[in-house]
Amino acid sequence: MTLQISSPADFHVHLRQGTITDLIVPHVRKGGFDLAYVMPNLKPPITSTDQALEYQERLLKIDSNVDYLMTLYLSPELTPDEIRKASKAGIVGVKSYPRGVTTNSDGGIESYETYYPIFQVMQEVDMVLNLHGEVPSDPSANIHVLNAEPSFLPHLFKIHEAFPKLRIVLEHATTRAAVDAVKKCGPTVACTITAHHLELIVDDWAGQSWNFCKPVAKYPDDRKALQEVVREGHPRFFLGSDSAPHPPDTKSTSSPSHACAAGIYTSPILLPLVAHLLESFGALDKLEDFVSTNGRSFYRRPIETHVNGRTIQLHKTQNLVKGKYEFENEALVPFWAGKQLNWEIVE
Amino acid sequence: MTLQISSPADFHVHLRQGTITDLIVPHVRKGGFDLAYVMPNLKPPITSTDQALEYQERLLKIDSNVDYLMTLYLSPELTPDEIRKASKAGIVGVKSYPRGVTTNSDGGIESYETYYPIFQVMQEVDMVLNLHGEVPSDPSANIHVLNAEPSFLPHLFKIHEAFPKLRIVLEHATTRAAVDAVKKCGPTVACTITAHHLELIVDDWAGQSWNFCKPVAKYPDDRKALQEVVREGHPRFFLGSDSAPHPPDTKSTSSPSHACAAGIYTSPILLPLVAHLLESFGALDKLEDFVSTNGRSFYRRPIETHVNGRTIQLHKTQNLVKGKYEFENEALVPFWAGKQLNWEIVE
Repeated sequence: MTLQISSPADFHVHLRQGTITDLIVPHVRKGGFDLAYVMPNLKPPITSTDQALEYQERLLKIDSNVDYLMTLYLSPELTPDEIRKASKAGIVGVKSYPRGVTTNSDGGIESYETYYPIFQVMQEVDMVLNLHGEVPSDPSANIHVLNAEPSFLPHLFKIHEAFPKLRIVLEHATTRAAVDAVKKCGPTVACTITAHHLELIVDDWAGQSWNFCKPVAKYPDDRKALQEVVREGHPRFFLGSDSAPHPPDTKSTSSPSHACAAGIYTSPILLPLVAHLLESFGALDKLEDFVSTNGRSFYRRPIETHVNGRTIQLHKTQNLVKGKYEFENEALVPFWAGKQLNWEIVE
Repeated sequence: MTLQISSPADFHVHLRQGTITDLIVPHVRKGGFDLAYVMPNLKPPITSTDQALEYQERLLKIDSNVDYLMTLYLSPELTPDEIRKASKAGIVGVKSYPRGVTTNSDGGIESYETYYPIFQVMQEVDMVLNLHGEVPSDPSANIHVLNAEPSFLPHLFKIHEAFPKLRIVLEHATTRAAVDAVKKCGPTVACTITAHHLELIVDDWAGQSWNFCKPVAKYPDDRKALQEVVREGHPRFFLGSDSAPHPPDTKSTSSPSHACAAGIYTSPILLPLVAHLLESFGALDKLEDFVSTNGRSFYRRPIETHVNGRTIQLHKTQNLVKGKYEFENEALVPFWAGKQLNWEIVE
């Protein structure tokens, strides 16, 4: 059996900066994808149009066949004028990180009201708001890594209510509560799901730091909800890999004095991995919807607009995932290293 | 200020076998304790009186000043006759491990009714049943490491109802649900609490395998419940450290292909650590109850019966916890390595 998928699009990916960028940008196409929705959490973060365009230029130099959709980092520096400028320059979205907004908040919980003037202009110029949907852990309020996402959802409802025409994406949903919340919202609210959250649960990262990411993988019933919404083919749910490269020494925990980096690297195996997982829970017929059509429709990036778009063919295999990818001094261990994937891209 | 504590007793400790036993047995006294309730999960497990006595002899050879209370591993091999023999030989308890939930528990139990004839004789001869209170993870039933303990509690109630005079200890409780359950039971049901569960929550082991143990540390509200029951001085709750030595290479996660060992090593710093923690949540006045009186009372091991019992003096300090303990080829990194403890034992 061969599968044909039109121009897969990854609507949440980290391409970083420095040498590692040279290693990982080619993995977007290698993993089967022609579009990368690029996260702005660099050091320093991408907060202006000029920075974003410069970054896009750097990425295009490495691989000009990918459609890089750029985003800005939501921060107090961002002005309505900058939003208008960004929109004119083709920048697609603004990403909100809980950590970045806690400075303008009461008691550690985000206060999005501060950013309402920004959201107003984003709605006018039709830019997308990308939400990292977690509140910071707060033991005194019993907020921890496992309920950080459900605790965020009232913020989603409130922003959506205040700006019903603002397109919002709840990023990397991990809970049944988040799936239900997005479904309840109107057509302007969508949701990305990673490949790894379709597979992992809390037991998988308990004592295994390589499976640790944020948001953390949740309970079996939450994983089931993610799988169900993909199987259902709901048009507002689509792939955003959140593929996040971290060097092996930051993923292992050789010392009790510091925790490992949060993140899972899936880019180079992404389309075969998603095909493998969807097949495992009976949703292979929704593969193109999940990895291409749904997201492209929400972001108004139809397949025919992308000159370099490919039709990817997948066929059955029993390949093992490569143990390591290297470039100059950088090395990365992908998710599922050494495990068997049942699908591979026909070169 | 100086604290005087009479003959501290650790009612749940792993002393293992082989060279590491020579390293860790002296740590019982070093940590301030004169009594060790010794877990039977060796390879092979301690399932007979003869094995237990042989093991006790080995421990006494290393340090004869500790009162070692021995236990048997609940398994199909155990007979009512063996229980009577064990009781006569001074063996105190029988430990039940659910299958597969922690270190060396592959031979653990699946159904408790099978063991009712054993429990009947244990009740007659007044042996204690020590329960590892978790059910195995089962994704299809939404059972995972975080609800494994609450899901076990119906078993506790059922056994207690069937054998109301059988003394039962729910080991290393980690949840508010477990604390409430033990409180609801009659005077024959008690509960141990570890030092590390008075400190850790899920956020502390997320991405940090050195803080990973079974049962896993739970949510902030659960930690609060453990702290509250200690502060309340409830007589049926007492210290069982569950101190579990694992070599550094098994605690770190250098490879994505296998998880780290579950366990936290607290023995050599145990009494100062417990004093530090109880002081941090306003329960220092309950220190002797928690580490000595309550457990000794439940186990009928009053202080005066132990010929080698000591009164331990603690005074204020700003010592840092040692980074590593070594003996021959064995090395262990204790909990809180490099962190400051506010109390130390006066030698």
